[in-house]
Amino acid sequence: MTAVSSAGPAAVSVPDVLERCRELVRPALTEAVGRLHPWVGEMAGYAFGWCEVGGAPVAASGGKGLRQALAVLGAEAAGADGRDGAAAAVAVELVHTFSLLHDDIMDGDGMRRGRPAVWKAYGTGPAVLAGDALFALAVETLAAAPGGAGTLRRLSAALSDLLHGQADDLLFAARPWTGPERVRPEAYRVMAERKTGALLGCAAALGALLGGAPPATADALDRAGRHLGVAFQIVDDILGLWGDPAVTGKPVHADLRERKKTFPVLAALDTTGPAARRLAARLASDADPAETAALIEAAGGRTAALAEAHRHLDAAGAALSEVPLRATAAAALHALPAFLLERTR
Amino acid sequence: MTAVSSAGPAAVSVPDVLERCRELVRPALTEAVGRLHPWVGEMAGYAFGWCEVGGAPVAASGGKGLRQALAVLGAEAAGADGRDGAAAAVAVELVHTFSLLHDDIMDGDGMRRGRPAVWKAYGTGPAVLAGDALFALAVETLAAAPGGAGTLRRLSAALSDLLHGQADDLLFAARPWTGPERVRPEAYRVMAERKTGALLGCAAALGALLGGAPPATADALDRAGRHLGVAFQIVDDILGLWGDPAVTGKPVHADLRERKKTFPVLAALDTTGPAARRLAARLASDADPAETAALIEAAGGRTAALAEAHRHLDAAGAALSEVPLRATAAAALHALPAFLLERTR
Repeated sequence: MTAVSSAGPAAVSVPDVLERCRELVRPALTEAVGRLHPWVGEMAGYAFGWCEVGGAPVAASGGKGLRQALAVLGAEAAGADGRDGAAAAVAVELVHTFSLLHDDIMDGDGMRRGRPAVWKAYGTGPAVLAGDALFALAVETLAAAPGGAGTLRRLSAALSDLLHGQADDLLFAARPWTGPERVRPEAYRVMAERKTGALLGCAAALGALLGGAPPATADALDRAGRHLGVAFQIVDDILGLWGDPAVTGKPVHADLRERKKTFPVLAALDTTGPAARRLAARLASDADPAETAALIEAAGGRTAALAEAHRHLDAAGAALSEVPLRATAAAALHALPAFLLERTR
Repeated sequence: MTAVSSAGPAAVSVPDVLERCRELVRPALTEAVGRLHPWVGEMAGYAFGWCEVGGAPVAASGGKGLRQALAVLGAEAAGADGRDGAAAAVAVELVHTFSLLHDDIMDGDGMRRGRPAVWKAYGTGPAVLAGDALFALAVETLAAAPGGAGTLRRLSAALSDLLHGQADDLLFAARPWTGPERVRPEAYRVMAERKTGALLGCAAALGALLGGAPPATADALDRAGRHLGVAFQIVDDILGLWGDPAVTGKPVHADLRERKKTFPVLAALDTTGPAARRLAARLASDADPAETAALIEAAGGRTAALAEAHRHLDAAGAALSEVPLRATAAAALHALPAFLLERTR
């Protein structure tokens, strides 16, 4: 293992890294999904963007595969072959897909990556079942890997965090925008770290452990992934308000209509200027979401959200620099933040 | 460990055994549920029959606790203290409750144990989330126990079976009663072993493993639990057709209305007499379910179902007799079949 704690050469192409990791993981992921009940396997294939309803092959967008990449890079950062992290990559990708399937039911989101969500395409009951089966398959995959009970303790802790964060997120939607019961930005951070950060951190840590890394390295990668996750969630919030639906695959302003407590809104309301008061008044009415988004920006919500995302990406980089990692994998990990922020431009 | 392979003294009271096991497991189960998000914990408490909606304590029927008892008895059968099986008992009880929560959503069943099902009481989205959280807590609980990755491999295999069986059960409902596409009794047996038997077998096997039993003992207990599960599912089918709703907690004939392929119907249709043909004609119409149930009985469906349940209970007893088990626990395990069948009288 080469001890390199800063970023390597600047020439890392993150899309290439993500594609390489997806290709490396794909055989193991296909094999795992092939063990499912055929009907459930078709729903999983649809969710992964491999097929249409009915099973006909298609090349739809199946997501970037950030979680599987973190697991592969975690193994490589530990000095191992990326394939040593494949079981971790499959497990976290299955958990992520399970959570998307069930979150879309809970949030009533009918679209996912530009296509009907699984519950819209197959029905709520089947989508519940498919999510459950992906969840079980994730545990089964990791239990069959050589990591032992320690890796399963990490995965189950991340799952518990993820579901805790999802519960908070659902309850936040019922809370008021203003007054003592309002959601503060700090409560959002805790929710986002649980809902999104825990699995990203777990992905990198599990990959590192399967690659033979000591616990301290896995812990540092876990912290980095958690910060990356908070930044990722904030960037998602920004895209939901000001992004291009053709890129995000979801209708614009859906979060506002669902009264989701997203970071830009919370940060704007947490200022005390007249723009914040105008925003609060507008949120109480059923105003045009496009005008509300403009008011959030005028009250400083977009700037504050970008600054917060930057802070977490810096903290992720700092966590990566705490431990010795193999240079090429470290360079790829350090390149992820800039790539993530690029989506907001 | 005392090697006793036949039933002990006949004076075993199964209700007393079940109650003792529930009391032994309750502290660990309460502690585990207490680690959930408070909102999710309330839904779990409601599902366990500990509280009403809102959290007010209540003593509702929370089920017999057959799975937790099997885990405790598995540990005791291995010569250990029943408490050594508590982590397994908690894990299987959480998995069982998770599966009830999600099954009721998939089947559209609004009642469970005489009260509104969790999805009726709290909403579909929250019930999906609560089920997921119980599932994750089960894995977390077992991962924290001293059994290592081997116990988690067994639990995840049982989970995979359970969900495979649930998928089959859902698809069976869409299949015709007659013709080449009909569901045969053998396909039902495979479904029931997966959906119900796998977790019962896993419960006893995990308890035994945590109690220090060799794999052969765990395997025998697993087989016994699987046969017990098939019998249990058939008895449930019998109760759904001819049972007292005050005892079952579910409306009578719900299975018939949902076109569930239950064993008594499949067995009746698999005969070739005139009663089977009359039954097939009646099932094709929207006839009165009470009359249909009478016709199923006339065609021999009830007798055949009871005989099949008996066969599986005998096979469970035979599996128990293959390995040395501590006498008191073995006696309790051997007493379960008669207790189960008593419900059908």
